[in-house]
Amino acid sequence: MKVDGVAYRTVWLAKDGWSIEVIDQTRLPHAFVVARLTSLADAAAAIRTMVVRGAPLIGAAAAYGIALAMRADDSDEGLVEACRVLLATRPTAVNLRWALDRMEARLHMHPPVERVVAAYAEAEAIADEDVAMCRAIGEHGVALIQKIAEGRAPGRPVNILTHCNAGWLATVDWGTALAPVYMARERGIPVHVWVDETRPRNQGASLTAWELNHHGIPHTVIADNVGGHLMQHGKVDLCIVGTDRTTATGDVCNKIGTYLKALAAFDNNVPFYVGAPSPSIDWLLSDGVRDIPIEEREGTELSEITGRTAAGALATVTVTPSGSPVANYGFDVTPARLITGLITERGNCPATWDGLRALFPEAPRPGAPS
Amino acid sequence: MKVDGVAYRTVWLAKDGWSIEVIDQTRLPHAFVVARLTSLADAAAAIRTMVVRGAPLIGAAAAYGIALAMRADDSDEGLVEACRVLLATRPTAVNLRWALDRMEARLHMHPPVERVVAAYAEAEAIADEDVAMCRAIGEHGVALIQKIAEGRAPGRPVNILTHCNAGWLATVDWGTALAPVYMARERGIPVHVWVDETRPRNQGASLTAWELNHHGIPHTVIADNVGGHLMQHGKVDLCIVGTDRTTATGDVCNKIGTYLKALAAFDNNVPFYVGAPSPSIDWLLSDGVRDIPIEEREGTELSEITGRTAAGALATVTVTPSGSPVANYGFDVTPARLITGLITERGNCPATWDGLRALFPEAPRPGAPS
Repeated sequence: MKVDGVAYRTVWLAKDGWSIEVIDQTRLPHAFVVARLTSLADAAAAIRTMVVRGAPLIGAAAAYGIALAMRADDSDEGLVEACRVLLATRPTAVNLRWALDRMEARLHMHPPVERVVAAYAEAEAIADEDVAMCRAIGEHGVALIQKIAEGRAPGRPVNILTHCNAGWLATVDWGTALAPVYMARERGIPVHVWVDETRPRNQGASLTAWELNHHGIPHTVIADNVGGHLMQHGKVDLCIVGTDRTTATGDVCNKIGTYLKALAAFDNNVPFYVGAPSPSIDWLLSDGVRDIPIEEREGTELSEITGRTAAGALATVTVTPSGSPVANYGFDVTPARLITGLITERGNCPATWDGLRALFPEAPRPGAPS
Repeated sequence: MKVDGVAYRTVWLAKDGWSIEVIDQTRLPHAFVVARLTSLADAAAAIRTMVVRGAPLIGAAAAYGIALAMRADDSDEGLVEACRVLLATRPTAVNLRWALDRMEARLHMHPPVERVVAAYAEAEAIADEDVAMCRAIGEHGVALIQKIAEGRAPGRPVNILTHCNAGWLATVDWGTALAPVYMARERGIPVHVWVDETRPRNQGASLTAWELNHHGIPHTVIADNVGGHLMQHGKVDLCIVGTDRTTATGDVCNKIGTYLKALAAFDNNVPFYVGAPSPSIDWLLSDGVRDIPIEEREGTELSEITGRTAAGALATVTVTPSGSPVANYGFDVTPARLITGLITERGNCPATWDGLRALFPEAPRPGAPS
């Protein structure tokens, strides 16, 4: 997608032919900075500190991290250790495990001496496939928007609410939840996006609003508390969010607060869809609330906020009283019963075992060897 | 209640015998500052800019504002105009109208020359009655906490989630939602409060956390997105919130985001109670979502945040991209069907017409002359 009119991906091979460059998302929306990763440690730190974030992008960045690791140690032990280090960076998104499993399986097919070349090739394949999957999600998702647009007066926008950032910044390109929005824009369907601020890290206000700004898509930033009120008053036609881990039964683990929006959508008969590329599906899980580990992060993500001062400098301020403890859970689980449908790269389906199986008949079965 | 061990109310007659002093709540939690009001304009500005906020406190502050207005103009026209100016400051809380109606009716019983004295007396009565009502809400509400505490291992705290600030800062003293918490503390019942940050103005992080800190009550500040996750995992025993306007049928209009917490509580069988003093009840309304005007405030409340820098100074930073519009709705309406019960000064009741009528048989009936 575009930044000031120039096409970018979120992660790419640098011109030197070996180092990896990424958009530093901790600096957005206030500064557009490209960070360079040159080692396994760099890649792990970039994921852990959320220089790169978003489940699909984490997967692709981890794959490139393996390539960097192979440059330093292409042994079996080096491969296993690199996977261990990267897997430990974030506990919730399953794409990370998926990408590392794929890289490890692929590289074990090669003798050590071939692994560097094979790793870069496989990482590039993962990145390219992510772009293709997200584009396909856009195609399948835009049909939902088109259908709503057809039912109303010409020019009246379809109002879409999204939570966190599941736009192109969360993937290699296009996004998951926002791919249908970008596709609608390309097709001339008028849309307006309600952007949940998404506390505590403000990915909606910082990243989603920034993305939409750069593509000229009308949007309004709202506090996370507002969506229910908007839905009660008919101001939301459709919710689309992303997913960090989807169970085989259609439960969706996504940014903390997603569950509350799903409850409000259900209570107000607003369709609630999830952009879910297949690498986000954990075929081994059937109960998301029970089984998905929820990351707890530093309390300072809640108690401190960084922004621009009137003078244009960046400053960090503390907003809570000094004596008050804080807790910071990164994700929650939306039960499948609240989800209207999943938008996958193979089409839209109900958030059910049968719905997913119909699209992915080859997927491993829980308990069975995969 | 107490600030650094010293007893305070939120609004009081100054030592000079005529001006009004209030705690400037826009400065909390970073500074404790007392503001002095000397005119109708001062009082109106204090309410509009949220130097004082919280439905019960707004009512009491407006009553004192009438007293200040009578000092300048005690004519019939002066009285009507003062009521008009104060009523226009905030559209949602019904306590404001209730207090102004009461002041106006009372002062019309006096000739102009007696109105200053009568106004101060009536404002003081409103303030004192508010304290008594909140204390009674504490007594009735603590019974709910006590019952939960009895069902568990000794010493294990009752986990209470609250949204926004309905503590003593929102009233003249004691609070509504938090009065039962303070009462539990006095009775030695262990409690722990989950404090919703409450974007965009952060009344939870700024005011509720500050209050609880000053009373040594264990609490944890969380993002507004977190409550659903906590309830899914059994970490919330009880929700208690305040109300800015309660319909005769038990719908509750409260700080934006309350509805989302009520949905989550309902979905997880967590009791959801509302501390509702009778001046918050609008006996003329039966459909809160349809009929209660929802205040929209400045977008800068969302896009800018003020906090302490590492050097200890206060600074305001902008967190949204410069090209992104924001919307800022102040309240939402929680339908009565999601509310376990109302805690009023006369006892607890279902959030229904019959429940409220049983406690307040003398209340006006919608449509009937009151």
